[in-house]
Amino acid sequence: MITYPTKKNVYQRKRVSTTNRGMTLEALIDETNAHYLRENSAIIHKKPTPIQIVKVDYPARSMAKITEAYYKTPSTTDYNGIYKGKYIDFDVKETLSATSFPLKNIHAHQINHLKQVDAHGGIAFLLIAFKKHGTYHLLPYKNLDVYLTRAEKGRKSIAYQELCETSIEVREGFRPSLDYLKAVDRLLKQKDL
Amino acid sequence: MITYPTKKNVYQRKRVSTTNRGMTLEALIDETNAHYLRENSAIIHKKPTPIQIVKVDYPARSMAKITEAYYKTPSTTDYNGIYKGKYIDFDVKETLSATSFPLKNIHAHQINHLKQVDAHGGIAFLLIAFKKHGTYHLLPYKNLDVYLTRAEKGRKSIAYQELCETSIEVREGFRPSLDYLKAVDRLLKQKDL
Repeated sequence: MITYPTKKNVYQRKRVSTTNRGMTLEALIDETNAHYLRENSAIIHKKPTPIQIVKVDYPARSMAKITEAYYKTPSTTDYNGIYKGKYIDFDVKETLSATSFPLKNIHAHQINHLKQVDAHGGIAFLLIAFKKHGTYHLLPYKNLDVYLTRAEKGRKSIAYQELCETSIEVREGFRPSLDYLKAVDRLLKQKDL
Repeated sequence: MITYPTKKNVYQRKRVSTTNRGMTLEALIDETNAHYLRENSAIIHKKPTPIQIVKVDYPARSMAKITEAYYKTPSTTDYNGIYKGKYIDFDVKETLSATSFPLKNIHAHQINHLKQVDAHGGIAFLLIAFKKHGTYHLLPYKNLDVYLTRAEKGRKSIAYQELCETSIEVREGFRPSLDYLKAVDRLLKQKDL
């Protein structure tokens, strides 16, 4: 959906940190991706939720109504696409904790997929929101991998402080509401070094 | 699904052209992508069909049963992923015609998406199956674009013969059943020139 500037939006702009507070992280990303697509800076889409369809009715000739279906476990992450000619792939996570992000929030298939993407030279990361702090963190897969290795023997979460030090912060803004490609640019620069 | 070699498969192998005749094009691609994933040569997945979920029941605590849902129009193609560090994106099409492929089989959102991917430096193409001939053709977006432009004033289909001349043939085989990355390799070589 294209949203046009209105007086109300301009007013809301002033209260920066609360601008998008009503939106879920997923909605922020969707809005941001739509913005990137309009600006032609990247082509990134959310993958649909995989559904196992069991029964379909046809109440009218041109209409299919699914009457029995179940959620399937995805085998990948939720977002992927192309940015600056590179393959980009990520998932988003939210936590209500103020102190740490529990690694059990990441599913095995997501870790496995991000690891493969990273190995193939793609841009792979998690975008983690700390709702209590109102902060967003782009955690590159390579850094996540360090925490996953540590978790095998020790701590099974990422402390807020250490996440701040090992991730790239993404600031909430107006349009796009969560300009995470800025953080990706910083990540790409680091890789060039 | 992983299929292990059996006497039967070995026998079937001899009748090359009919090996996979019972499988739909989509099943061939899924099998091929699973093969690529196992061999770690590419990470390519089919996107789930987008569904608009209206009503969900919870007959048991841990079980969600979708009881009303509808198909949504996708905004992209069906397949994407990463190959040799590059973003790859395509759709598959089948035709029963022996003489030509009608361009109306390609939806506007698919054309638009492939065009964007191509412009961003991704590998964008259609994989077209002529069922009567048992042939498969990788048509790079740039070549498709020529036919789309022509269609604005003239012929609204691609003749079988001209498709053969402007696409890269993909041979049906044993494992993987449709090794389209070989054709992608040839496409990448052409681009390097």
